[in-house]
Amino acid sequence: MKPNDKTPNNGRREFIQKSALAGAGLAFLSTGGVLAGQNREKPAAPNIKSKGYAAKDASGKLSPWQFERRPLGDNDILIDIKYASICHSDIHQMKGDWGQQKYPQVPGHEIAGIVAAVGKNVTRFNVGDRAGVGCMVDSCMTCESCKHGEEQFCDNGATLFTYGYPDKTSPSGITQGGYSNNIVVRDHFAVHIPDHLSLQEAAPLLCAGITTYSPLMNANFRRGDKVGVAGIGGLGHLAIKLAVSKGADVYAFTTSADKVTDILSFGAKEAIVVNDLSKLKPYKGKLDYLISTIPAQFDVAAYASVVKRNGFFTQVGMPAGFQLTVSNIALANTHVNFNASLIGGIPETQEVVYYCADNKVTPKIEIIKAEEINDAWTKVMNKQARYRFVVDAATF
Amino acid sequence: MKPNDKTPNNGRREFIQKSALAGAGLAFLSTGGVLAGQNREKPAAPNIKSKGYAAKDASGKLSPWQFERRPLGDNDILIDIKYASICHSDIHQMKGDWGQQKYPQVPGHEIAGIVAAVGKNVTRFNVGDRAGVGCMVDSCMTCESCKHGEEQFCDNGATLFTYGYPDKTSPSGITQGGYSNNIVVRDHFAVHIPDHLSLQEAAPLLCAGITTYSPLMNANFRRGDKVGVAGIGGLGHLAIKLAVSKGADVYAFTTSADKVTDILSFGAKEAIVVNDLSKLKPYKGKLDYLISTIPAQFDVAAYASVVKRNGFFTQVGMPAGFQLTVSNIALANTHVNFNASLIGGIPETQEVVYYCADNKVTPKIEIIKAEEINDAWTKVMNKQARYRFVVDAATF
Ligand SMILES: [Zn+2]
Ligand SMILES: [Zn+2]
Ligand SMILES: [Zn+2]
Ligand SMILES: [Zn+2]
Repeated sequence: MKPNDKTPNNGRREFIQKSALAGAGLAFLSTGGVLAGQNREKPAAPNIKSKGYAAKDASGKLSPWQFERRPLGDNDILIDIKYASICHSDIHQMKGDWGQQKYPQVPGHEIAGIVAAVGKNVTRFNVGDRAGVGCMVDSCMTCESCKHGEEQFCDNGATLFTYGYPDKTSPSGITQGGYSNNIVVRDHFAVHIPDHLSLQEAAPLLCAGITTYSPLMNANFRRGDKVGVAGIGGLGHLAIKLAVSKGADVYAFTTSADKVTDILSFGAKEAIVVNDLSKLKPYKGKLDYLISTIPAQFDVAAYASVVKRNGFFTQVGMPAGFQLTVSNIALANTHVNFNASLIGGIPETQEVVYYCADNKVTPKIEIIKAEEINDAWTKVMNKQARYRFVVDAATF
Repeated sequence: MKPNDKTPNNGRREFIQKSALAGAGLAFLSTGGVLAGQNREKPAAPNIKSKGYAAKDASGKLSPWQFERRPLGDNDILIDIKYASICHSDIHQMKGDWGQQKYPQVPGHEIAGIVAAVGKNVTRFNVGDRAGVGCMVDSCMTCESCKHGEEQFCDNGATLFTYGYPDKTSPSGITQGGYSNNIVVRDHFAVHIPDHLSLQEAAPLLCAGITTYSPLMNANFRRGDKVGVAGIGGLGHLAIKLAVSKGADVYAFTTSADKVTDILSFGAKEAIVVNDLSKLKPYKGKLDYLISTIPAQFDVAAYASVVKRNGFFTQVGMPAGFQLTVSNIALANTHVNFNASLIGGIPETQEVVYYCADNKVTPKIEIIKAEEINDAWTKVMNKQARYRFVVDAATF
């Protein structure tokens, strides 16, 4: 199923196109007669009104915006958003750090709420269910990657990210994210949030949680292994908690001396303040695995040096321009394998939500009102978030 | 043993320092009396005269130079060089691409010849033996890395590379390489060249051979696995031959269409001409392992995409500035582990020489005279080498 086959309108459009190809109704098409006729038989569902906070330009400032989402399709659910949290990626993308954007654009891909309506084919959700949406809202669903639950690697390149991506079904032409009071999403791309996890604590798991959980699980470390986490913000603090919960001895590397107390309270064995790279030296070759959430250019090989030979180092932070510079000679000296990871598939996203609910792994959050978003963004950029701002969607 | 303990002069200096510490002979030290006295008893061995081709500046042009090497130490051997081959690294370093250099500097770290003299402690070599020298000529020899045959990773940072490195034992103050008629080297850092391998074909194994052999062996591929080689020059053509010899199906990626016939003659299964990156697409996720010898900036993630998920990709080529730029989002999409490798230790260097001799894995070489070196360098830079220029040391 392609993105443009998704709504009732598009279902009809497809029917019409097929009819046209068969030579029927061609005369009517140019006048819109067929559409008008069908509309009389079965009225088109109206677009869904939404309000939220949008970027109107690359200034990095958001302001209130009223907009429309597509009508509920047969495979869609409508979620009344209760909480949406703030990811550093929201800021990068709205400011155009990753390419020019279309505006207005509503960011937000850490979304938790209550199902308010379901399309007629939907069996996985009922009205009233607690549900979350993360970084993706659609994909081809037929390729090998999609069939294996890695929709983020859709072989047909049809992964549709939650905001700012071209989307013919969206009245605004692009996907619009979660800094808003509701969202319409294909049911497959929503996950269940169990009752023993609050919606406000669930929200950050949808990006920060899965983004760190996926590579940590892939690293296959054992209890007692030494796991490093570099960059202790929204992603990093969850990485510490997840690795601790899985039995690792966690070494946290931060540039913020005032995070040390928090870091130790998250269960880390050591908090290392890397105010210059020489602070890494005592850890040379000591760790079994390292994950970096640093969302900026940094010395990859210097951090790799703390990992033992033939160990692994995963980058999950997204620097401006998506580019990292690596000294190949310094990397050669470490003999460490460097890889990068990007979110995780939908089944694994469901898994991390259940895992965190069952094991009491929760983000440290601060709930804010919509009108505080711009201030919160400034704090995120200044490394002052402790550790995830969650917007109360009732205030949009 | 530190680099400055290596020669008879320095052995004496060490004795004197110890005496000084014990409070004896202190008065003589400031006047040089002790040294003078010892010199009378046992005359210092003279420096060894050498001639070769040196860079006099960063122009990338070499010219004849007569210079001196240190006297033969107790653990040293003197090699009459017969052949020295040209590595792209020679050019990068002489031009200052990797940092400012001291001149005159004799490049060359692919060296083969005949042992002409041995120090009194040397047991591994006899006069008349065939011997080779590669990228290193000394290290601490006492640290864990050195004791485990990984002298290139000396934990004390005492790895001494073959040319251009500060060396108190060298009359010119830096190590001087193999584009010359002889070399004095600590015996541990020379390898044996068996009789069934010609000296001219042995020379390129000392850098190009070990640099590709080491990561290929570390990759642990099996017979029938698909191994990619990107960049088919001096290193790459040996990588093809080594991987083929070890039973891999080899896919060679080159930007030079006129190398295809050669590549297939080396035993590659396919030669792919990557005149633009779209040529990589049909190979997406197909290879078990990839080694790149590309000695310049390139799109790391695009090449990584030909490796299957969770596979490995090793960079051995050394770009100018040693810096590679990697798109972390594109690398995340590949799920490939990227690492870098730098030469190999001395035991493994000996291993590759024996392996190539026994299995008839030999570089494709062109023998040139010293006066042709500058032309050969231009050809190397223009990707016109087929595939290793070997200088006949009789012409220095
Ligand atoms: Zn995010
Ligand atoms: Zn797909
Ligand atoms: Zn070399
Ligand atoms: Zn050492």
